[in-house]
Amino acid sequence: MTSERILVLHGPNLNLLGRREPGIYGFTTLPEIDAMLTREAERLEVVVTSQQSNSEGELVSAIQAAWGRECGIVINAAAYTHTSVAIRDALAASQLPTVEVHLSNIYRRESFRQHSYIAPIAIGQISGFGADSYWLGLQALVRHLRQPTTEASEA
Amino acid sequence: MTSERILVLHGPNLNLLGRREPGIYGFTTLPEIDAMLTREAERLEVVVTSQQSNSEGELVSAIQAAWGRECGIVINAAAYTHTSVAIRDALAASQLPTVEVHLSNIYRRESFRQHSYIAPIAIGQISGFGADSYWLGLQALVRHLRQPTTEASEA
Amino acid sequence: MTSERILVLHGPNLNLLGRREPGIYGFTTLPEIDAMLTREAERLEVVVTSQQSNSEGELVSAIQAAWGRECGIVINAAAYTHTSVAIRDALAASQLPTVEVHLSNIYRRESFRQHSYIAPIAIGQISGFGADSYWLGLQALVRHLRQPTTEASEA
Amino acid sequence: MTSERILVLHGPNLNLLGRREPGIYGFTTLPEIDAMLTREAERLEVVVTSQQSNSEGELVSAIQAAWGRECGIVINAAAYTHTSVAIRDALAASQLPTVEVHLSNIYRRESFRQHSYIAPIAIGQISGFGADSYWLGLQALVRHLRQPTTEASEA
Amino acid sequence: MTSERILVLHGPNLNLLGRREPGIYGFTTLPEIDAMLTREAERLEVVVTSQQSNSEGELVSAIQAAWGRECGIVINAAAYTHTSVAIRDALAASQLPTVEVHLSNIYRRESFRQHSYIAPIAIGQISGFGADSYWLGLQALVRHLRQPTTEASEA
Amino acid sequence: MTSERILVLHGPNLNLLGRREPGIYGFTTLPEIDAMLTREAERLEVVVTSQQSNSEGELVSAIQAAWGRECGIVINAAAYTHTSVAIRDALAASQLPTVEVHLSNIYRRESFRQHSYIAPIAIGQISGFGADSYWLGLQALVRHLRQPTTEASEA
Amino acid sequence: MTSERILVLHGPNLNLLGRREPGIYGFTTLPEIDAMLTREAERLEVVVTSQQSNSEGELVSAIQAAWGRECGIVINAAAYTHTSVAIRDALAASQLPTVEVHLSNIYRRESFRQHSYIAPIAIGQISGFGADSYWLGLQALVRHLRQPTTEASEA
Amino acid sequence: MTSERILVLHGPNLNLLGRREPGIYGFTTLPEIDAMLTREAERLEVVVTSQQSNSEGELVSAIQAAWGRECGIVINAAAYTHTSVAIRDALAASQLPTVEVHLSNIYRRESFRQHSYIAPIAIGQISGFGADSYWLGLQALVRHLRQPTTEASEA
Amino acid sequence: MTSERILVLHGPNLNLLGRREPGIYGFTTLPEIDAMLTREAERLEVVVTSQQSNSEGELVSAIQAAWGRECGIVINAAAYTHTSVAIRDALAASQLPTVEVHLSNIYRRESFRQHSYIAPIAIGQISGFGADSYWLGLQALVRHLRQPTTEASEA
Amino acid sequence: MTSERILVLHGPNLNLLGRREPGIYGFTTLPEIDAMLTREAERLEVVVTSQQSNSEGELVSAIQAAWGRECGIVINAAAYTHTSVAIRDALAASQLPTVEVHLSNIYRRESFRQHSYIAPIAIGQISGFGADSYWLGLQALVRHLRQPTTEASEA
Amino acid sequence: MTSERILVLHGPNLNLLGRREPGIYGFTTLPEIDAMLTREAERLEVVVTSQQSNSEGELVSAIQAAWGRECGIVINAAAYTHTSVAIRDALAASQLPTVEVHLSNIYRRESFRQHSYIAPIAIGQISGFGADSYWLGLQALVRHLRQPTTEASEA
Amino acid sequence: MTSERILVLHGPNLNLLGRREPGIYGFTTLPEIDAMLTREAERLEVVVTSQQSNSEGELVSAIQAAWGRECGIVINAAAYTHTSVAIRDALAASQLPTVEVHLSNIYRRESFRQHSYIAPIAIGQISGFGADSYWLGLQALVRHLRQPTTEASEA
Repeated sequence: MTSERILVLHGPNLNLLGRREPGIYGFTTLPEIDAMLTREAERLEVVVTSQQSNSEGELVSAIQAAWGRECGIVINAAAYTHTSVAIRDALAASQLPTVEVHLSNIYRRESFRQHSYIAPIAIGQISGFGADSYWLGLQALVRHLRQPTTEASEA
Repeated sequence: MTSERILVLHGPNLNLLGRREPGIYGFTTLPEIDAMLTREAERLEVVVTSQQSNSEGELVSAIQAAWGRECGIVINAAAYTHTSVAIRDALAASQLPTVEVHLSNIYRRESFRQHSYIAPIAIGQISGFGADSYWLGLQALVRHLRQPTTEASEA
Repeated sequence: MTSERILVLHGPNLNLLGRREPGIYGFTTLPEIDAMLTREAERLEVVVTSQQSNSEGELVSAIQAAWGRECGIVINAAAYTHTSVAIRDALAASQLPTVEVHLSNIYRRESFRQHSYIAPIAIGQISGFGADSYWLGLQALVRHLRQPTTEASEA
Repeated sequence: MTSERILVLHGPNLNLLGRREPGIYGFTTLPEIDAMLTREAERLEVVVTSQQSNSEGELVSAIQAAWGRECGIVINAAAYTHTSVAIRDALAASQLPTVEVHLSNIYRRESFRQHSYIAPIAIGQISGFGADSYWLGLQALVRHLRQPTTEASEA
Repeated sequence: MTSERILVLHGPNLNLLGRREPGIYGFTTLPEIDAMLTREAERLEVVVTSQQSNSEGELVSAIQAAWGRECGIVINAAAYTHTSVAIRDALAASQLPTVEVHLSNIYRRESFRQHSYIAPIAIGQISGFGADSYWLGLQALVRHLRQPTTEASEA
Repeated sequence: MTSERILVLHGPNLNLLGRREPGIYGFTTLPEIDAMLTREAERLEVVVTSQQSNSEGELVSAIQAAWGRECGIVINAAAYTHTSVAIRDALAASQLPTVEVHLSNIYRRESFRQHSYIAPIAIGQISGFGADSYWLGLQALVRHLRQPTTEASEA
Repeated sequence: MTSERILVLHGPNLNLLGRREPGIYGFTTLPEIDAMLTREAERLEVVVTSQQSNSEGELVSAIQAAWGRECGIVINAAAYTHTSVAIRDALAASQLPTVEVHLSNIYRRESFRQHSYIAPIAIGQISGFGADSYWLGLQALVRHLRQPTTEASEA
Repeated sequence: MTSERILVLHGPNLNLLGRREPGIYGFTTLPEIDAMLTREAERLEVVVTSQQSNSEGELVSAIQAAWGRECGIVINAAAYTHTSVAIRDALAASQLPTVEVHLSNIYRRESFRQHSYIAPIAIGQISGFGADSYWLGLQALVRHLRQPTTEASEA
Repeated sequence: MTSERILVLHGPNLNLLGRREPGIYGFTTLPEIDAMLTREAERLEVVVTSQQSNSEGELVSAIQAAWGRECGIVINAAAYTHTSVAIRDALAASQLPTVEVHLSNIYRRESFRQHSYIAPIAIGQISGFGADSYWLGLQALVRHLRQPTTEASEA
Repeated sequence: MTSERILVLHGPNLNLLGRREPGIYGFTTLPEIDAMLTREAERLEVVVTSQQSNSEGELVSAIQAAWGRECGIVINAAAYTHTSVAIRDALAASQLPTVEVHLSNIYRRESFRQHSYIAPIAIGQISGFGADSYWLGLQALVRHLRQPTTEASEA
Repeated sequence: MTSERILVLHGPNLNLLGRREPGIYGFTTLPEIDAMLTREAERLEVVVTSQQSNSEGELVSAIQAAWGRECGIVINAAAYTHTSVAIRDALAASQLPTVEVHLSNIYRRESFRQHSYIAPIAIGQISGFGADSYWLGLQALVRHLRQPTTEASEA
Repeated sequence: MTSERILVLHGPNLNLLGRREPGIYGFTTLPEIDAMLTREAERLEVVVTSQQSNSEGELVSAIQAAWGRECGIVINAAAYTHTSVAIRDALAASQLPTVEVHLSNIYRRESFRQHSYIAPIAIGQISGFGADSYWLGLQALVRHLRQPTTEASEA
């Protein structure tokens, strides 16, 4: 049996994680998150590839490139969550099951961070658990991919 | 070492799960979800108690009663998510770490379901993964309770 | 032929009907309305049961209990019309044909009374005819239940 | 005793009923609705006259002409429900008791159909019961006209 | 010297003036208003023609017909004030100086009556003085037509 | 017979009329407007007093002082039209019939100029006719004061 | 002379007062507030009964039960202030003079706490003085009940 | 092969084209536009009929009459674009493919011109190209009618 | 022990109290309110000074002058409550404990009266008790000044 | 005579056309659209160059580079239509005549797709005709470039 | 060469600067700011006069008085920035180049402080630099007055 | 003493400055602005580096790269000011003091240009002074960096 391949996408400024404003985003760096996801992926017998970009266009292209190569996407689009119709359209076009994750609880922050263009086209959203949001997102996606018959979703 | 105690609260109409509108909410019943959580709790070495009510006041009282007895709460407040300031206030007063879960992806549904009174006073929110949302919520809460030093949360 | 069973639900404060503020709600009491509905039910050869509650949770439970026992619901949710997503969800889950009625013309009153959470999941709404609103609601439901093929509803 | 005279007004596009989009509006034609109302009027011992127009101005004039000739109006203003202040003003000026009816449940449709200029100056509104909405509207108006002392309506 | 010709337009339901709801609109009838305007026109040495219609389209056509024949328009568009872009466009296209009048003070009435599509393309608006609003409107228009150099209007 | 006394109030910046921005407000100065009103007052056999102030408080006090001394008020509150609840309250407390006038057509200007705190407590409003707005306002007030029985105004 | 009877109602979560979040709500417990009110009631020669509930329906029923038994109500509806039309309707139906009180200054808190369904049907509102809000509310109600002729209230 | 028949509808005030305000709408008259469309129709081997009306009701009736006689509609509803639900409903009921055209770029004009009731039920919209908008609309409709298999439209 | 000094500020038009519109504001005059407050101040062993102004700037200056001289402020800013950021800023800068009072229940009046710039920077607000609102405001302020340790207020 | 040069710009995700979600966007690929435009360009005797990018910045740079080289732009900015002020500014700065096209009818889709930052600075907009939207856009631009005197555009 | 004269206007409560709430507004007093501006004016070879008022009307009059005497205005209207149309109108009428300054960054404060009536009629706005905002505003105004040809401003 | 290093960032389309639309943005080119800043930097004894990009992602990366290398940032984010949460987040993460500048007075332009995502996380904002805005921004930043003790900023 071939392992499922999963793409983890990190949006703008997430390359700064753990190095700046640890009071806000914690001390864990992005490479540490990726390493944690790789370890967990081994346990779950899936293959995780991750990519970070500050450019909306590069994220769109990365999503397009995932088509036919990946089985699902875990995305923390960071600031683009709230402004990018292009990333939403790329995810919708890819038709890959997608889990949206956020480090912080976006519902405690500025009102402009409480709207997500991605949520309506994702399977679901996980927000507020720090680096654990990624760990939970990976679990959620793998469980979704492996469930025998997809639970019906509401219209 | 004593196991952490966790309260799982189910809001109105969730007692119907699996018996009506399976096309929307799936075939899993609430007792099956509770059983699944109990099994997972054993694996995680925590103790889970669950309670369902159609009454806002009973849910408020259940949250009040958790004070000094439970270590955290996983709550799917269902319809009351969108209308109950009283449940929000009870959770805030309890000062217990709370994880908000939803079976369906509330961001795909009617606009009045996209506002949560609970999210801003919860650690985080998980929505859209069917019964897995509870499973993920339990993981998230246990990991939160067990992390050596709490990651700083944003202001 | 067995008569169709119909549940009539009265929301909060309707137990006061005819006793207070007759200038607003008229002199007819709730028992008089129930008696009138029972007489009309006999004429229509249906069986009417009625129930009043000031509690949102009790109304939710009453709707759940109607499942498999009643053929349809006539509901005047009174104040909960405007605030209860839980009653809406219970009615939707029950999948019973429901007629929403109001004594007063809610479009002449405060703006917060002009939104109904129930209307979009009911067959239809009747408002403004005093106690006659119930009489009309009963006719509407019986005609709906007895029509040979359901008229298609718009999307 | 002279029978009460009642005017039934049908707004724009209702002449198409039953001939187009039966999936939405059913198979009953407007002449069939008028015939049904005539039969029911006989049973109720009232006289019903009906009129259809695609023109807002003609509907205004028809309402003006009803003054001193009719005892009440049942109106389905269709699209003009949502856009015509002139029809509202004509109805208010006529001071005839008016019942507003809609074939479809307007609360399930586009948001611009959920506002009625007519409702606040009508006795009440009935929506969602297909051709039965007219039948119910006629009952409601006749009962209103015949009740010994008008129930007080709220301010 | 030829007298200036002025068209007075009365919108929907104004033909009812003085006959219905005198408590609201006073006892003066439309023919009495027209007669009063004719007398005042003589004094002012202008010629007044007046026209009433319940139809938006007829009012549009009447405005179009005024082009090249009239020197200015006094209009009480009544209900169409608040809903008709077509009348606004006809007035703008006619390029005739227009004075908007209202019998009642529209700023004391329902909020939907407080917006006028006509005001921004009129010289000015007069509202609240009953039949005097027309008398004032005629004065205003004649003074406007006769002033040697038009006062600059703000951008 | 004693002549009626009328107070004309000019709000902030109107002392600049005719001296600055004639392209916007015309070449007529405030003293010229007052002189024109005095001449017209003589013709109408009323006595006009006028007052200008840049201060909201002074205008409030002037309105208070009019009580028992004046029969009516013509007011161009200029910028305070849009921001002063205090002037509105003073006018309402004075119970003097008030006509609101504006030089420019406020419905052609910035949206914040299209709301008047004064209009709902005035008899009526006249806007857009330059200095003629005052002349028309004086006519309107005198006609209002002299009409045998006040026309009923709508609620 | 019989003492006036006054009902004091405490809404959801107020049973926690003084035990949790003293940093927010102070150290005074609900029994202490009730005791303070009882002492003050003696001084004022009125009889105070108090009741707390986490349930909207129970509060509605308590208000209904006050009819004919109590002379007035002091209510801190807490969270239900902002969400309960049912409590508003019960208070209006009871026709008992009602004073609305809040411990905290609701105008310093989340925007959803700045709207009260109760205020428009109460005599008045007192907010922000901690336990003193109740003390003040009791004074206000007793003074209101004992004033020889009620001061007219504005429309 | 029979030529496809196409109805071109012109809304209110378009009969003035080219005669008034050429600075805004250009010098081309409506007959010239119709002649141009006739020539182009010949080249495309379709038959074009055109009709103009200032009346909303007449436009509704013209659309109804097109049923079974025309293959498609090109409509410039002018002012009614923004206010007429009746024309929208007539077009939807006709089920004829419809192309909406506008002479001017409505997205550069007043905000009330930027909403179209017609666009959501048309195939598409063309705005801003002067008389060319009609020419383009005719091309678009003919290409739509002649394409072998209709391109799927998005939900 | 020196008595605490308290400044009572009355905003615009309150000098008219009791003389005009007694149907709205009652028969009590402002000097009578001040006399009542003086008597109550003696009983409470505080010194009350009061001041009325129709001018926003004078009220700002009066608040500034209170600094170092007064211990607290009771303010009924009347119309300026809803429009004056300057008074809010002066009160905030003065850092004196402030109680906001209103004669009428502002939540029953026009919507623009339901917003207060002052409330968020006051200790609390009292509205609706007529002249008693001042009496209650004085009690509230004195109790606040004399409580041993200030109750914590919510964030 | 030199042919006019025209730049065709395709925004994010349009490279996926015809390969994914054909149910929504049809089976035509972007190279096929470009080929069709090239053929049509030959017939029209213009030169078409086309470019696709997922990057907002690259599209801005492409528009800048068109200056002095191209005569006009046909742009389908896809998702950036709704969010990019930068592309709007680049188009405005280029001063090149621009036609905005959309494959789908954006007025049938999510409300966030119904606002275009580009439309107010384009000549006009064409939406809803699938690949034909490009064909129509090219016609519109060429006709615009070749008309002897530009039709005046409305203010 | 005569030095340019510049008026510096300080709005309400700015006389308190440096004496109260230094934690918010710093320790610099208004006389110190004026002294700093005078020194800098000497260096720039301009003459600065400054004035502070708590009264909106006085500020209006001061602006009017500047006409013909001053060459430009630097204004910190403080609270009146957000509420005064009268000051805006006075500045517009004065036609003097005006620079708006704020000590604090108004975009970090309450939302009502983020709207300025003055900004649209000023040359520009400087906010957030403490006393330096005045220093920068003076530089900006002098540079503006001295530039050989005024840079075109956008429409 | 080492000179402070300051990064000047120019957003999309600013590379066109002085070459296109000089009527709007003036004749000064971006290299001329950079040269002017370099000269002024020498006078101020700081080092200025400047960078322009049309790409949101490149600007994010440039801000990230400034960390540890620059002492502060002067940014004119142009169109991204209004849409880019990513640039805001990068600036916030960098924790470098930032001054926001705009060539034009954004408060005179389209309403969508009047909201800045950057302003709330900048020290302050300067807008409307053409190229001088940069000169003023540089002064403001240098004065901020050199002030002995930072003035407290408001919460």
